[in-house]
Amino acid sequence: MAEYIESLQLLAEKFGRLEGVGKKTAMRMAFSILELEEEEVRSFASAILDAKEKIHLCPICQNLTDREVCSICADEERDRATVCVVSDPRAVLAMEKVREFSGVYHVLHGLISPMNGITPEQLKIKELLQRVSEDGVEEVIVATNPTVEGEATAMYLSKLLRPFGVRVTRLAYGVPVGADLEYADEITLFRALEGRRDV
Amino acid sequence: MAEYIESLQLLAEKFGRLEGVGKKTAMRMAFSILELEEEEVRSFASAILDAKEKIHLCPICQNLTDREVCSICADEERDRATVCVVSDPRAVLAMEKVREFSGVYHVLHGLISPMNGITPEQLKIKELLQRVSEDGVEEVIVATNPTVEGEATAMYLSKLLRPFGVRVTRLAYGVPVGADLEYADEITLFRALEGRRDV
Repeated sequence: MAEYIESLQLLAEKFGRLEGVGKKTAMRMAFSILELEEEEVRSFASAILDAKEKIHLCPICQNLTDREVCSICADEERDRATVCVVSDPRAVLAMEKVREFSGVYHVLHGLISPMNGITPEQLKIKELLQRVSEDGVEEVIVATNPTVEGEATAMYLSKLLRPFGVRVTRLAYGVPVGADLEYADEITLFRALEGRRDV
Repeated sequence: MAEYIESLQLLAEKFGRLEGVGKKTAMRMAFSILELEEEEVRSFASAILDAKEKIHLCPICQNLTDREVCSICADEERDRATVCVVSDPRAVLAMEKVREFSGVYHVLHGLISPMNGITPEQLKIKELLQRVSEDGVEEVIVATNPTVEGEATAMYLSKLLRPFGVRVTRLAYGVPVGADLEYADEITLFRALEGRRDV
């Protein structure tokens, strides 16, 4: 019986530690691994190690990258005067799909959430302030999720950024309230970008 | 932008090859890996290799095991005269949860499905026939799913097993316990009616 197979149980536990993977899904995935060819399994394991080893944060925008500076920050054609602040790298992916934003990003790696014990100090806010103070930033678009935490973080940032004399904007409520940027469709995201307003 | 991060993209592809994992889920999982501690990631990778290396098929029942013979086949208290035939190891798990079945299993590793090019030769049917011919089996419960493929496989097996003089049974069809008659489909209701019993 598979519950007695220690290595399978262990593998299912590992899968279960990934975000959004429940117990049944984790077990299904563990079984899936056994169905793969041995070569495939080896390359799976090394892909995991590889990704973890090679990928780190871009020293400028804090997004994930496998280069010294991420491809967006390294791109000469991006407008460095406009910084779009997002909560996580997935939001950058979502924004990039719009193909309408030519500025750069800043990834906070979380949202302020006292309920979950996440304080501003744990986010990449210090790095954002430093960028704004040094880099000739003119506008900061706070594109955090339209949720309680996202709003709170946006309010907090706008207060912090005011002394720097930059324009602080927020995505328009074209994004459905309560949703996740990752799942917003491109047109909604585009409208939200277009209709951004001063905080 | 994460789409340009080759190792992340590769990892997401690997996750996408697991059963029931779509593109977005695969990408979320790849991101999840990056959020784990390095130590955790290493043990994840080795759990994958470990499971694949250690787990093989039990030579008797064809279920997955990390021992020479699986724990059920090795259990002296299980009734070897009753063999429950299932399509895959997950069905064994489901059956074992009932705690009412004291016989042994036989895992086919698939169902006959000409549409998907799965022929009887690809399943562990040869091994089942050998068991039945040698091991003093008295009853074979064909517990394949009540689907077209499951039915076809059950019919095929019952024909093959008849010459051996064993009793071949099939799990009862009926309304699931706790369900509402209103939502039962007609075929299920028909079968439930057909299989009605005295109270």
